[in-house]
Amino acid sequence: MSIDQLIASLGKNTYIQGHMNTNAAILIIGNEILSGRTKDANAVWLAEKLAARGLKLCEIRVVRDEEDDIISAVHALSDKYDLVFTTGGIGPTHDDITAPCMAKTFNVALPLNDDARRALEEHYTARHQDVTEARLRMARIPEGAKLIDNPVSGAPGFIIKNVYVMAGVPKIMQAMYEGIEETLPKGAALHTRTIPIAAGESQLAAPLEKVQNDFPNVEIGSYPGKDIVEIVVRGADEDEVEKAVARVEELSLKTQKAI
Amino acid sequence: MSIDQLIASLGKNTYIQGHMNTNAAILIIGNEILSGRTKDANAVWLAEKLAARGLKLCEIRVVRDEEDDIISAVHALSDKYDLVFTTGGIGPTHDDITAPCMAKTFNVALPLNDDARRALEEHYTARHQDVTEARLRMARIPEGAKLIDNPVSGAPGFIIKNVYVMAGVPKIMQAMYEGIEETLPKGAALHTRTIPIAAGESQLAAPLEKVQNDFPNVEIGSYPGKDIVEIVVRGADEDEVEKAVARVEELSLKTQKAI
Repeated sequence: MSIDQLIASLGKNTYIQGHMNTNAAILIIGNEILSGRTKDANAVWLAEKLAARGLKLCEIRVVRDEEDDIISAVHALSDKYDLVFTTGGIGPTHDDITAPCMAKTFNVALPLNDDARRALEEHYTARHQDVTEARLRMARIPEGAKLIDNPVSGAPGFIIKNVYVMAGVPKIMQAMYEGIEETLPKGAALHTRTIPIAAGESQLAAPLEKVQNDFPNVEIGSYPGKDIVEIVVRGADEDEVEKAVARVEELSLKTQKAI
Repeated sequence: MSIDQLIASLGKNTYIQGHMNTNAAILIIGNEILSGRTKDANAVWLAEKLAARGLKLCEIRVVRDEEDDIISAVHALSDKYDLVFTTGGIGPTHDDITAPCMAKTFNVALPLNDDARRALEEHYTARHQDVTEARLRMARIPEGAKLIDNPVSGAPGFIIKNVYVMAGVPKIMQAMYEGIEETLPKGAALHTRTIPIAAGESQLAAPLEKVQNDFPNVEIGSYPGKDIVEIVVRGADEDEVEKAVARVEELSLKTQKAI
């Protein structure tokens, strides 16, 4: 397997039912996504990264820049999942309300953070610019939160409880994530095999269900394409995955004969 | 304004705080999105369509093919919003569990629906194929639901309470939506103006907040790009939108002078 293939297959890994794993959710904050104005790139990018790290992404939510909506989503996701990654709403303008919402959610103050202030001063001074009042707003960080470095534009993200609060601009969000990636728990490497079958989903449904029932620790997905169905088999136990794959391949031969 | 510009601007419309409108949510059902394997195209397509109809999209969720997750998301979204659109999980294979989940959510039976069965028979007979047991599974529709026509592959979607249940394959979902679009409520046409300003967000933050405070019925968003910030002004009252735009343009001139 080449490095490219390895990376591609890692990107396809996912949660196995019954397998111990760290689960995660993504919360995208921003009206511009919901209005159809901006196509979100962050959820897809993060989904691939989390899968590559063996983390089980269980839910994505997109909410508007509204205090009530943000707070209730953060509460729900933070309670339900091990890790929550948010993007958006930490800039300097009036519609950037993520930091105060996080402070309210976790019932802590939102003081000016000395380290965040220093990061902003370093960033702007190096560019011969002033740290204005608007910029200083980005140094208000919920009490007790840990900063996430922003090598692109200075203003840091932060970690509060199990919530990783990052920027909405993809380039900045990606740099922030890459900075904290190594601190995240790492899931077990999962084995993924994709078997394309030249048949309709309906033909495969019954025998495929039988394979799934025979291998309850393996997750079998069926994804209809144009003239083929892709069967994806995932599992923690390589041997079990291979046994299930053999059954699916048998099925593939039978179906193709039948056509 | 040309027709193209009109369509483009409609696509950018969104909810105005305090303005009467029908709100909506989208629920994407499918492991393949969360595992990073498949890039979802349905949420973006639907977001644009709902905006063009003047419906206020308030939330998008993506959940796994797990009964508990689907049921709790449908409950939450159906209670909170006027309309809910779901995609995915209505095919013939074992991982397609949306229909039984909807029946459980709303506590109704899941009988074989005569009209759905007829639709399948017509579709497959025209293609000299049999309606197999696996295919008939797609004719099991929650009691009391209204069917959504599927001109592409026969198996219908359905409407239960305020939830529109559609296929996950984009081509099929789009055809289903287009079939029900005219039956949806229509929001008021909203006015959207985008003003690009060659400045940093921080420079604009304070004066922009003042404009927002002076025009509480207009929604002002700030979206940082590469060398410019795009200010988006939206509102139901065209006159008010234009007044706010004039203030933003003034601001733009001042900021550009300052540079």
